[in-house]
Amino acid sequence: MAPDDPVAQDTRHVLHPWADLTVLGKQESLIISEANGVEVSDSRGKKYLDAIGGMWCVTVGYGNEELTRAIAAQALKMAYFTPFGDVSSEPAAKLAAMLAELSPGDLNRVQFTTCGSTAVESAVRIAHYYYASQGRPEKHHVLARVNSYHGSTFLAASLSGKAVDRTTFHYESDWVHHLENPVHDPDNAQVSAQERVDALTAGMEAAIARIGAGNIACYVAEPVLASGGVLVPPPGYHEAALEVCRRHDILYISDEVVTGFGRLGHFFASEAKFGIVPDMIVTAKGLTSGYQPLGAVLVSDRVANAIAEAANPEKPVFSNGFTYSGHPVACAAAIANIEIMRREDICGHVREVGPYFIRRLRELRSSPIVAAVRGDHLMACVECHVPGEVGPTARNQAMARRVDAYCEEAGLLVRPYENLCIMSPPLVVTKGGIDRIVDIMAESLARAERDLGAGAPE
Amino acid sequence: MAPDDPVAQDTRHVLHPWADLTVLGKQESLIISEANGVEVSDSRGKKYLDAIGGMWCVTVGYGNEELTRAIAAQALKMAYFTPFGDVSSEPAAKLAAMLAELSPGDLNRVQFTTCGSTAVESAVRIAHYYYASQGRPEKHHVLARVNSYHGSTFLAASLSGKAVDRTTFHYESDWVHHLENPVHDPDNAQVSAQERVDALTAGMEAAIARIGAGNIACYVAEPVLASGGVLVPPPGYHEAALEVCRRHDILYISDEVVTGFGRLGHFFASEAKFGIVPDMIVTAKGLTSGYQPLGAVLVSDRVANAIAEAANPEKPVFSNGFTYSGHPVACAAAIANIEIMRREDICGHVREVGPYFIRRLRELRSSPIVAAVRGDHLMACVECHVPGEVGPTARNQAMARRVDAYCEEAGLLVRPYENLCIMSPPLVVTKGGIDRIVDIMAESLARAERDLGAGAPE
Repeated sequence: MAPDDPVAQDTRHVLHPWADLTVLGKQESLIISEANGVEVSDSRGKKYLDAIGGMWCVTVGYGNEELTRAIAAQALKMAYFTPFGDVSSEPAAKLAAMLAELSPGDLNRVQFTTCGSTAVESAVRIAHYYYASQGRPEKHHVLARVNSYHGSTFLAASLSGKAVDRTTFHYESDWVHHLENPVHDPDNAQVSAQERVDALTAGMEAAIARIGAGNIACYVAEPVLASGGVLVPPPGYHEAALEVCRRHDILYISDEVVTGFGRLGHFFASEAKFGIVPDMIVTAKGLTSGYQPLGAVLVSDRVANAIAEAANPEKPVFSNGFTYSGHPVACAAAIANIEIMRREDICGHVREVGPYFIRRLRELRSSPIVAAVRGDHLMACVECHVPGEVGPTARNQAMARRVDAYCEEAGLLVRPYENLCIMSPPLVVTKGGIDRIVDIMAESLARAERDLGAGAPE
Repeated sequence: MAPDDPVAQDTRHVLHPWADLTVLGKQESLIISEANGVEVSDSRGKKYLDAIGGMWCVTVGYGNEELTRAIAAQALKMAYFTPFGDVSSEPAAKLAAMLAELSPGDLNRVQFTTCGSTAVESAVRIAHYYYASQGRPEKHHVLARVNSYHGSTFLAASLSGKAVDRTTFHYESDWVHHLENPVHDPDNAQVSAQERVDALTAGMEAAIARIGAGNIACYVAEPVLASGGVLVPPPGYHEAALEVCRRHDILYISDEVVTGFGRLGHFFASEAKFGIVPDMIVTAKGLTSGYQPLGAVLVSDRVANAIAEAANPEKPVFSNGFTYSGHPVACAAAIANIEIMRREDICGHVREVGPYFIRRLRELRSSPIVAAVRGDHLMACVECHVPGEVGPTARNQAMARRVDAYCEEAGLLVRPYENLCIMSPPLVVTKGGIDRIVDIMAESLARAERDLGAGAPE
C-alpha cells in the first residue's frame, strides 16, 4: 500500500475516538469518501444507506448545496474573529436569536461552544457560577444517571454513566453522582409506568437526602438516553424529575445533543414531547446537520439575570468560553440548516415517518434473536441476543456484531454498541428508505439466526 | 434598533466568553462583519488593522480563496461521518500524516478534537490512561504553572493559572498544582538567566518531592505563556524542565495552541526554538488559520504504543474522543492551510519579520507609560503603567484600556488584558503593516500620556 494511501495514513497516524487499542497500528479503517442524501460511499466506491445519520447528526441529508454555499460564503467574507467580551459577529448574533425563538420558555441566552462535550461542561460551570455567586460554592455537586452519555472531556466523561465507557481513565466521583437508569420498556416491564415513575422519583429524593440539597448544583439528563442504548423513560418521568429539582433548588440541564433538532419531531423535545421547561438546554450535532463542529448552551433568563445581578464588580468577568465559541462559519451553517429545516418542515416529516420507522422496526421482534426493539421517532435500536440469554453478554454482543456485519455487507450502516444495533437515519429519510433499512435488518437477522442454528456465534 | 439588527440580537441573546456580567443585556458589541488579508471591518464599515490575528489564530490572512474552496469542496463531497472506532475519512487520515511529519521526534500519533480546551483535556486524559493502564491510577496529578492559560472546560480551567480568570467557578485543586510563573525579562531581571533556570528547576523539584513523583502523571506548559501576558522563560528552561520530568517519569505536554503554526517562525516551537521533544504536543488555533474549529493532540509513538501494549483485552476501547474529532471539513481547512503555509514559506516570512516586529515595538519603551515590551516573533505585548506604579493595578489597567481605545479609534485592534496590550498579527503581516501597528501604538501611547499629564486616568 502506498504511504499516501488514506488507509495506510489512518492506520499509522490516527488515534480514533473509541479505538480498539489491541489493534492500534494494525486495523484498517473503513474510509468514508463521499456522501449524498441518505447515502455514503467508501473509498472503494461501495455505497451504504447511512442508518446512523453520521452519528445522530445529519438532518437535511448529505451534499446539501444551500448549506455548503452558506459555509463557503461566510468563510470568504469573515471566517473568524474573537467572540470574547464585547466583540461579536452577525452569524453568532443571528443564530442566538433563532435559538432563543426555537427553545421553550425563557431560555433566551446562548453560550456557544465547539461540540456537545464543551456545551455540557459550560452548562455545569454556569450552574456552579450561579450558586457560587450567591455565596454557595459548596452547592457544586452534580446528579447524572447510569447509562447516560454526556461527552468525553474529564467532567463530561465523569457525568457519563455508561459502564462500558468507564475504562482506566481518571474520573471525578466525589461530587458527581449517578441515579438509576430510568428506562421503562412497556413490552418487558414488570411494573406500570406510574409505579416506575414513583420508584425513580423516590430514588432521586433518597439520593438528594443523602448528598444534601444544599450541596447539589444541577441535574443533567438526556430526555431519551441515546448512546446508552436508546432508553426511553416512562411517561411523566421528566415532569416528576423537574418537580423534584425545583423543590430542592437544583438546576435542571436537559442534554438535547441527540434529541434536539428534529430527531423526535421537534427542534427541542423537552417541552414539545415531555412537557418540561428546563433551566438550560444543551445542543450540538443536528444543530449544523453535522456539517460543522458547533455546540451551545441555552440558558434561561432567570439564571442568566441572576448571574448578572450577583456579579462581583471587582471581578465581573464570566471566565468561561472558547476561542471558537460562536465560530462565524459554524454559525452560518446552523442558520442555513434551520432555514432549510423550517422551509421543508423537516420536523413535520419526522413526526410523520418517525412512527412508521418504529412500527416497522417492531416487526423485527418476531425474530428469535431480537430481545427488544426500543425507540422514539428517528432514534431506535434493536437489541440482539442468543435466545434465553439476557443482557450484553459476550455471546449476545457477538450476535449483534454479526448482524451489524451482515448489514454492512448488504449496504446498510448501523451503529453497533454492546448487543445493540443503534439507528438514527438522516431526518430526510423517506418511507422507502425506512423500508430498505428494515428489509436489510430482517435479512441480516435471518442470516445470523441461521448461523446460530449452525452453531455460531462463538 | 430593529429586533433583527445584529447588535440588538447580540445584546439580548449572546452570553459571550469573558463577558462583563455587570453590563449583560446592556452592552452593545462591536460586530466584525468582513475581513480581508490583515484587515477586518465592523458593521458600520470602519476598517481596522487586526493586530491580534483573530485571537492568535490567523496565519494565511483573511478571505483566502484557496482555503475557502477546500472547505466548500469537502462540505459538498462528504461533510461528516463518525470517526469512532474503525471508521475514518480521507482529510483526517491525510492531516494526521502531515502533522506527524511536521512535529518533532516520534510524535506520530494524532487524536483530533474540536478546539484547544478539548485537546488539553485529551492530552491529560491520555497521560492518565498511560499510567493507569500500567496499574498506577494514583499517578494522576498534574503540574501546571501560575499565569498559564489552557482553556475553559472544568479541567482545562483548573490547569490555567491566571489569577484574573479565577472567578466564582468551581476548580479542581486536589490533584492540580501550579508551579511558579517562569518569566524572565532580561530588561528588568535581578538575576541571570542561568540563576533563574536554576531557581525554577529547584522549585519544580521541591513541588515534585512534596506531591510525590509517584502521584504525578504530567506537566503541562506553554513554551511562551501567551494570554497570561506573553511571558518568555529564560533560555535553557525548557530543557531543564524536560530533564526533571524524564528523571521522575512525568509526561511532558507542550501546549502549542498559540506558539505552533508559525507564530514563532516554525510549525512547532518545542524543538525548533527550545530544543525539546515533549511526549505530547497540543495544537489548535493556527492549525486552520482560524477558519474552522479544530484541535489535536500529537502523541509520541512511545506513549501510544505503551497504551496499546497495556490494553486490557476485556476492555480494550480507548473511550476518549468527540463526535467532531477529525471533522472532515475542518481537516480539509487545515490541510489547505498547511499547503499554503509551505508553498509561501510563511514560517520563513515570520522568521524575517518577527525580529523586526519586536525591535520596532521595543522603541516604544521610550514612552514613560510603557513599563515593558515583551515578546518573541509575532507574539508580543506592551505593558502599560502610570510611572512608578507596578503591576496590574486599577490605574495601570485603566491606562492600558485608554491606549487600547485610542488604537481602536485610529483603526488598530489590539487585545487588552489587565495592564497589557497584546499583539499577535496575522502571519502574513508585512514590514509596512508592522510599521503601521507601531506608529498607531506610539500615537495612542502619546495621547494617553498627555491625558495623564492632564490628570487622567482615574
